[in-house]
Amino acid sequence: MKKPGPRDPEFETRIRSSFARQGLMKTIGAKLLKVSPGESQIELSYSKAITQQHGFVHAGIVSTIADNACGYAAYTLMPADSEILGVENKINFLAPAKGERFVGIGRVIKSGRTLAVCSGEVWAYNGGEKTLVAVMQTTMMTVTKQEKAR
Amino acid sequence: MKKPGPRDPEFETRIRSSFARQGLMKTIGAKLLKVSPGESQIELSYSKAITQQHGFVHAGIVSTIADNACGYAAYTLMPADSEILGVENKINFLAPAKGERFVGIGRVIKSGRTLAVCSGEVWAYNGGEKTLVAVMQTTMMTVTKQEKAR
Amino acid sequence: MKKPGPRDPEFETRIRSSFARQGLMKTIGAKLLKVSPGESQIELSYSKAITQQHGFVHAGIVSTIADNACGYAAYTLMPADSEILGVENKINFLAPAKGERFVGIGRVIKSGRTLAVCSGEVWAYNGGEKTLVAVMQTTMMTVTKQEKAR
Amino acid sequence: MKKPGPRDPEFETRIRSSFARQGLMKTIGAKLLKVSPGESQIELSYSKAITQQHGFVHAGIVSTIADNACGYAAYTLMPADSEILGVENKINFLAPAKGERFVGIGRVIKSGRTLAVCSGEVWAYNGGEKTLVAVMQTTMMTVTKQEKAR
Repeated sequence: MKKPGPRDPEFETRIRSSFARQGLMKTIGAKLLKVSPGESQIELSYSKAITQQHGFVHAGIVSTIADNACGYAAYTLMPADSEILGVENKINFLAPAKGERFVGIGRVIKSGRTLAVCSGEVWAYNGGEKTLVAVMQTTMMTVTKQEKAR
Repeated sequence: MKKPGPRDPEFETRIRSSFARQGLMKTIGAKLLKVSPGESQIELSYSKAITQQHGFVHAGIVSTIADNACGYAAYTLMPADSEILGVENKINFLAPAKGERFVGIGRVIKSGRTLAVCSGEVWAYNGGEKTLVAVMQTTMMTVTKQEKAR
Repeated sequence: MKKPGPRDPEFETRIRSSFARQGLMKTIGAKLLKVSPGESQIELSYSKAITQQHGFVHAGIVSTIADNACGYAAYTLMPADSEILGVENKINFLAPAKGERFVGIGRVIKSGRTLAVCSGEVWAYNGGEKTLVAVMQTTMMTVTKQEKAR
Repeated sequence: MKKPGPRDPEFETRIRSSFARQGLMKTIGAKLLKVSPGESQIELSYSKAITQQHGFVHAGIVSTIADNACGYAAYTLMPADSEILGVENKINFLAPAKGERFVGIGRVIKSGRTLAVCSGEVWAYNGGEKTLVAVMQTTMMTVTKQEKAR
């Protein structure tokens, strides 16, 4: 499936600036590891501040980094003056989020004029091993300034 | 649809104790507002610590309180010695999470021996108004101690 | 949640004509039972032609009537010159689709300028009893003639 | 991610026999193209009997062959005396199902004792071109004879 290249040559600056404005990313200690056309990766370290009742990372945080990685993946392909809106997402949890470090990966499957469909994964790193913790399928929407002005 | 009553008379104590062990709920400032057979409600106040790039509450946190409310709703109907596992969830975002206060509501649609299906809502309270911010559909799984021992 | 009334007074004619053009509805023997602003109902009788391996109605057909009922529910609120596009759907199966007659119900939860979010249910009627067989959450998109012409 | 091999050496016979009992597959003209451990493929030819209002294949049928391919993919890895139950699925529609021939592909992402998570794709073949029409994420459940007897 042909993926359009980024229409905005400054996409990485635009995305890093958006990520830096997300208060939640600071609170949970997440970093934007990588951003390239149609893909982004978010890294998270384990801390007690983000746990569920058994001491593993909370499903809500697993979902957060998958969804955010998908959103920024889609946003790499959107016009410079656009904003991105999360329409919906669906996540399956495959294993407990047990590890020292986690990486959420978002990839664009299809990028249209209005909607983009992305797939997400979250991997847990524990010692030398990595485990696929969750898979996501999500829809993102481009909102252009003209549309906002209407 | 017939909903089975709670099998564990101590369900509220069990659930409040589980909620209190979730580090993430403290970090985001969420409280377990209400728990009754087949339903739970989680309350969250606005803070900059949980925002996305436009200063609204992050979609990941909206999803977290919907999923957690659904999980505890399902857990009210599970046996005393069971644990709960989130299988998957699906969320549609209807409006920006703009408000002073948010309530996630989880309700059991069907509770089976192994799986429970729940529906979730997140409401934003802003001044005197309330807005439906997101709707969720999710599957939860009962894990009993015998199963864990196998 | 405020639901906009139908913008097109001829919505029922438009929808019945669209339904009549769906070859699949004839093939499976489905009828458009009811259509009102923000809601539609599709009825289906049991036949061997639509079964899975145990002789119940196939999950794919349960999903089809839920999705179609949601689509026409959303379409009641769309402009006269618009077309409707299914963006995505999510379905949970609650019980085997065992019965003489089935009704898929679609209701609009939120109808925006571009996207509508709907919830669907499928009920099985067996003797005097009815059972909730599946619940759906879905996104529909309005495509206007101007957009198609761009 | 390690995928367990099939536990039942007769898995293909078991699956082809199950497929042959699905009345719906005959009605829509679908064939089981391929089945191997953790994967299955279902083929469908275009006909007016399976169309929506614009003459393309109905979204419900696209969803049906994706879900069915996922179900049989999961069933390849289940014990000989088990039955399979569809728990839920989620599908994103990427392009109109326009073509002469369609192939639904299901692959197991994770196969556990009780639940399996699969991903599905539907491809349209039109002249010499192929287009990705839809992507699915779904949960399947193993039901063993002992469990049914309880």
